[in-house]
Amino acid sequence: MRTMLEVEEALRLITDRVQPLAAESIPATEAHGWVLAEDVYAPISQPPWPRSPLDGYALHAADTKGAGWDMPVTLTVVDKIYAGGVPTVPVRQGEAARIMTGAPIPDGCDCVLRQEDTDLGTERVTIFSEVKPYQNYCPAGEDFREGDVLLCKGTRLTGRACGVLASAGLLRREVLLPVVRQVRCALFCTGDELVTNDTSALPPGKIYSSNAAMLAARLAELGVLVVRLAEAFPDDAHALAEAIRQAEEEADLILTVGGVSVGEKDILHETLPLLGADRVLWKARVKPGSPLMFSIHEKPILSLSGNPFAAGATFELFGRAVLAGLAGCGDLLPVRTKGILDTPFEKGGGMRRIVRGYFADGRVTLPEGHASGQLASSAGMNCLVDIAAEKGPLAAGSRVDVWLL
Amino acid sequence: MRTMLEVEEALRLITDRVQPLAAESIPATEAHGWVLAEDVYAPISQPPWPRSPLDGYALHAADTKGAGWDMPVTLTVVDKIYAGGVPTVPVRQGEAARIMTGAPIPDGCDCVLRQEDTDLGTERVTIFSEVKPYQNYCPAGEDFREGDVLLCKGTRLTGRACGVLASAGLLRREVLLPVVRQVRCALFCTGDELVTNDTSALPPGKIYSSNAAMLAARLAELGVLVVRLAEAFPDDAHALAEAIRQAEEEADLILTVGGVSVGEKDILHETLPLLGADRVLWKARVKPGSPLMFSIHEKPILSLSGNPFAAGATFELFGRAVLAGLAGCGDLLPVRTKGILDTPFEKGGGMRRIVRGYFADGRVTLPEGHASGQLASSAGMNCLVDIAAEKGPLAAGSRVDVWLL
Repeated sequence: MRTMLEVEEALRLITDRVQPLAAESIPATEAHGWVLAEDVYAPISQPPWPRSPLDGYALHAADTKGAGWDMPVTLTVVDKIYAGGVPTVPVRQGEAARIMTGAPIPDGCDCVLRQEDTDLGTERVTIFSEVKPYQNYCPAGEDFREGDVLLCKGTRLTGRACGVLASAGLLRREVLLPVVRQVRCALFCTGDELVTNDTSALPPGKIYSSNAAMLAARLAELGVLVVRLAEAFPDDAHALAEAIRQAEEEADLILTVGGVSVGEKDILHETLPLLGADRVLWKARVKPGSPLMFSIHEKPILSLSGNPFAAGATFELFGRAVLAGLAGCGDLLPVRTKGILDTPFEKGGGMRRIVRGYFADGRVTLPEGHASGQLASSAGMNCLVDIAAEKGPLAAGSRVDVWLL
Repeated sequence: MRTMLEVEEALRLITDRVQPLAAESIPATEAHGWVLAEDVYAPISQPPWPRSPLDGYALHAADTKGAGWDMPVTLTVVDKIYAGGVPTVPVRQGEAARIMTGAPIPDGCDCVLRQEDTDLGTERVTIFSEVKPYQNYCPAGEDFREGDVLLCKGTRLTGRACGVLASAGLLRREVLLPVVRQVRCALFCTGDELVTNDTSALPPGKIYSSNAAMLAARLAELGVLVVRLAEAFPDDAHALAEAIRQAEEEADLILTVGGVSVGEKDILHETLPLLGADRVLWKARVKPGSPLMFSIHEKPILSLSGNPFAAGATFELFGRAVLAGLAGCGDLLPVRTKGILDTPFEKGGGMRRIVRGYFADGRVTLPEGHASGQLASSAGMNCLVDIAAEKGPLAAGSRVDVWLL
């Protein structure tokens, strides 16, 4: 057995061997959730013209010089411009245009005076304040200018990014966007003890497969298409090798769960050589789930330990790193922050340990039931707590590293 | 004008007036993403029987008394049990059963000795260590027991929760789960200046509607069904009142954007009385987007300011509070944490301010372009930074409140 790798070394070995998938073009109207494979440029400026940020009067700053409540200045109102309207006449020195929030500022005007500093006049307006040039003046292209990079390569098209596309008029069916192809994953949960949920009465010695449902749903949450799902694959190394070979024809990633430890039924040790896969790593210094494997054959193969909590935690740690590599997008990694433990953590020492927790307002509560075979307490949790080997047992109030899920 | 409310008062007024939607039953296989309306009980225990957590020998702890490397004890091996198999004979005093990880521990045995402390014998096994009663022994029901509450009311059925359902054999079509009905939202973005993305050349004075695309996608991300989407509703108070009245027949929430300030075209002030809606609040002490409204008519009506960043930020702050109330699930609120500013923040003072940021590893970077009309810089951001009124300008290195998106 090789010396166990630290988690970060293992992650480096994994990400070194994973490349982003090819790009494809999809209609912008279907792009929500995808990752841009190329920069997208702005076809227009936004706003397209200088815009008023408030209700007031567009005018020449020079005309307001010296104006105050005790020194009013009166101008002729030559236009009234609502948002959605356009200026109808030029505004000369000594003139002003009534203007509303979001309306185009007429040519010649270099500022807007807020209506609170006027008498709200309609034909003539008396003003009680100075305005500086370009005060209350949103220049054309304040948000973005025609030709600017609007969204960068690697951006995940969230709701916010869809809003940005729409603000440039790009959210149309005819606009094709270059995006990284959706990751396709084949998931094999192995173990002779497993039966599917279609089995209404549990046979002796069997348990219901839970990793398949958990990880398939998690993959869907991360935008991955599950193209093959084996909930209860038998402990048959040859059959698994053949199934992986077939799955590699359509999947970008093979995820196996179970069979990675040192027992007689830990079939991955036989399956991977049968395939001729290159085993990049086996085991990382982390509990639970330390005997994970990562291999390269036609496609990357990530093999996780079968205990449900171990499978879930190592998927977050290593599986999402593979997905981020395939999608070319770091947003697929868990967000890391710090939290203060509300609950003491008694176990610990010896090896870096990942435990489940509930994070709220900077504080982390740990549930009862930490064993790697215990899954039920995961359901209401929203983070993993990453406890370094040297930390040992932790008192309530300790500051810990948190990975948000 | 009434005194402006603090954000927390506004949130309290909103959540006081929003009740969870009715429950409905859906097949468990379609429940991913939904919120449980009732507790779900475990129909079985998991594991169903005492289980071995490792590869070794199941035996009687009493037989190992005094055993050590210098004092080996030999037992007769009467059975071999793999995961998925069942014990075939009882194990008496002086006997042991070879057992693999995940296999049922035979009746009578009260512990498992790890194989590393044995000679791995097949017919007789020599053991070199004591074991305590119930050491390496996962009792039946370690994860959950038949009749236990498996998942609580209000739990959002994430991938982890789906795994828990599957581990109890509940992830079957025939199993109907009580869930809170999916929230249905009608979204009206108002403003005569707006045109839809179907408009290929921008007419003078017009801009592309972006709030509709942004918020519709964001609502979908939060599991909400958008049943009516008006991207560019004209500034016509009567037409809007009629459209809201119609939308209330199918929507649980009416979200309007624009028209909430004090200008001539701020039509919500006319629309809400036309409807006979009860305006619960107008304006909260927060920038941007302070002139938001919340009203109750047949359904709750949340009306946000139309500047794109203001609309997005106040949606996260107030819109998600309404959704959490309708879904009966606090997971719909943004996660709050703390971060250290990497970038100084020059503006500030006067009013509590929400700015966009990028959060990574406990640090927050602010983009250039904070104006509420600037949307493009939002695309790569993943948090909002909540800067208290008294804070004023902030130096790099300041500790700030962060809302993760």
